[in-house]
Amino acid sequence: MSSPLPGFGVIIPAGGAGKRLWPISTAARPKFLLDLTGQGRSLLRQAWDRLEPLAGAGQVTVVTGEAHVPAVTAQLAGLRADNLIAEPRPHDSMPAIALAAAIMRQRIGEVVLGSFAADHVIGDVAAFNKAVEAAYLTAKQGLIATIGIKPTEPSQAYGYIADGEPLGLDKAPRVKYAAAFKEKPDQATAEAYLKTGRYRWNAGMFVFRASLLFELLHQWQPELAAGIDELAAVWDTPKRAEALERIWPELPSIAIDYAVAEPAAKAGLMATVPGDFPWSDLGSYDSLRQATKDGSLRLVPGEPAILDGSAGSFVVSQTGQTVALLGVPDIVVAVSGDVVLVAGKDQAERIKDLASEAGRNTRSGLKHLSRTEISEAD
Amino acid sequence: MSSPLPGFGVIIPAGGAGKRLWPISTAARPKFLLDLTGQGRSLLRQAWDRLEPLAGAGQVTVVTGEAHVPAVTAQLAGLRADNLIAEPRPHDSMPAIALAAAIMRQRIGEVVLGSFAADHVIGDVAAFNKAVEAAYLTAKQGLIATIGIKPTEPSQAYGYIADGEPLGLDKAPRVKYAAAFKEKPDQATAEAYLKTGRYRWNAGMFVFRASLLFELLHQWQPELAAGIDELAAVWDTPKRAEALERIWPELPSIAIDYAVAEPAAKAGLMATVPGDFPWSDLGSYDSLRQATKDGSLRLVPGEPAILDGSAGSFVVSQTGQTVALLGVPDIVVAVSGDVVLVAGKDQAERIKDLASEAGRNTRSGLKHLSRTEISEAD
Repeated sequence: MSSPLPGFGVIIPAGGAGKRLWPISTAARPKFLLDLTGQGRSLLRQAWDRLEPLAGAGQVTVVTGEAHVPAVTAQLAGLRADNLIAEPRPHDSMPAIALAAAIMRQRIGEVVLGSFAADHVIGDVAAFNKAVEAAYLTAKQGLIATIGIKPTEPSQAYGYIADGEPLGLDKAPRVKYAAAFKEKPDQATAEAYLKTGRYRWNAGMFVFRASLLFELLHQWQPELAAGIDELAAVWDTPKRAEALERIWPELPSIAIDYAVAEPAAKAGLMATVPGDFPWSDLGSYDSLRQATKDGSLRLVPGEPAILDGSAGSFVVSQTGQTVALLGVPDIVVAVSGDVVLVAGKDQAERIKDLASEAGRNTRSGLKHLSRTEISEAD
Repeated sequence: MSSPLPGFGVIIPAGGAGKRLWPISTAARPKFLLDLTGQGRSLLRQAWDRLEPLAGAGQVTVVTGEAHVPAVTAQLAGLRADNLIAEPRPHDSMPAIALAAAIMRQRIGEVVLGSFAADHVIGDVAAFNKAVEAAYLTAKQGLIATIGIKPTEPSQAYGYIADGEPLGLDKAPRVKYAAAFKEKPDQATAEAYLKTGRYRWNAGMFVFRASLLFELLHQWQPELAAGIDELAAVWDTPKRAEALERIWPELPSIAIDYAVAEPAAKAGLMATVPGDFPWSDLGSYDSLRQATKDGSLRLVPGEPAILDGSAGSFVVSQTGQTVALLGVPDIVVAVSGDVVLVAGKDQAERIKDLASEAGRNTRSGLKHLSRTEISEAD
């Protein structure tokens, strides 16, 4: 276990429904609460176990939806009650991170903060720790640091960060300026990125001085910054509930990538720390499949499957049912207690749509398009 | 309800594992015990409800495996205990039918018997009743009558019976001699059969005088006939158990089609009664699918399914799980409590193999070829 970095705090935004992993991940029990890697710990708990030693006791804040508070507190025995922020309704990542940052800054004073997703998986914790330390040192220089993952394939599922010039830090010589953030590319572009060797995956890991974050937010997202300031000021007073109810729903819903990271890169305020550890956001069945394939990320041992004449097919099961595939190549089969999903490999967006539809209804919640047990598509 | 035909008895061989419908049908709970047609009655119970009124009280004998005796008696409240024959081990249909026939003949005296499978589905009981009556009249003329089903498509899943000359019965003018039994044909042959209009499906329904059956069995299957004679002679005595244990396992295992029907057709002793009612043996998922498609056979209302971009695919479920198919055309998905089967449409024989493998093991019983919950075929 590493020793804590002085004056370092961690924010874990535990949100996102993992809709592309439906029905394994559901609105009621999203991906970050699941043990997808067979370690007997959820992805959230693994994130906590990685990050809490780096930040030190009481220095980790978790932001999650109100509905998930009981599950989160049950999984994180070390989490102090006042370090858990319950969002009254989901926003994108920036409001959650900004509120946590404002509260921590108010309580601790000037602090370097790192924000790390609750539902990613990391294969080499020692290498991760070194990268976080380099990011911390970089942030202390007055930059926003991101940890850029070395691509293992021309993935179209991730955004990319282009390397700029070396920063020239003695203690972290491999850190470079981030020249630009790139959206998820098409296949040809992704392949071109990999050829140059100058692009890394954007894993959404950001490390920064709290003071710099708010300076930039006031410049680039003044409405959001003002709302957060007002909320933070009354957070540790009896006025919190009223302010949260009034202000939170009106905040702009935006990701930290767009609110801060992209403009900071353009402004020469962004640096990339190389992260050369195995990593995945487990963002889709294809991503799960890739993570299994390269063997660097051990995934769940569990239910048996029979795969026969089904090359390139992939099975995930949460039930005791044996899954048997006969002569069905290149499909995904995901089995939960409520749903059996059988999908072609290119169906990630349709899976997400179905998850949204299910989320609007009860239980697994699907509107029952057909009521026949023996159903046939024509 | 029809009135019973005088001197008519019925044999229902309730055997067969329905392996091509695994895991819906299993060795422990085979097809004939299942309600596959959504009527709240198993296929066996439906067969009983059709046939018992034709034969009259106490005139129906059921032959089944020892393991299924409790389920069969629970489903057939009207079945007299001494009209249930438990096979110590499964044989093909001829030994079961011959033993039942010998016992009924011994108890009742000369009798016309009809043998009908326990796991077929029939769409028009009135038309079926008329066909059985015509077969009964034909059998009284000293022939073996079979009910040949009018083909609705060039199926390769059924055997065919070629029509011969009309028999010339006043009360059943459409009955013809059966010229020959044909094995399951290939596609081209099946299409040629249909074009002639002279071929019918062999549904395994046979009606005959008991005396004629034993006359022919003594000629064509003397070993089987001798064993059955010996068994029947002691059946209603304390020697039954010893004789059954000693004789039954040694009997030749052969289907009535090969033992009697084919040679009888060659000998000019076989007649075909036209059966123009909807019928299916529900012998495979494709057969289930066909039965659903033509709409003549209503199948189970029950679990919901979502079928999207999955033309030609087919879902059967025994659990409350919603089945969602996205972009996977022409597959079969069958869900039981123990197994999720996803198969290409041409996999009926592999399904049967898997069912056999499962039958040799415990519970759903599959040898666990893979122990990873997240499984990938390479």
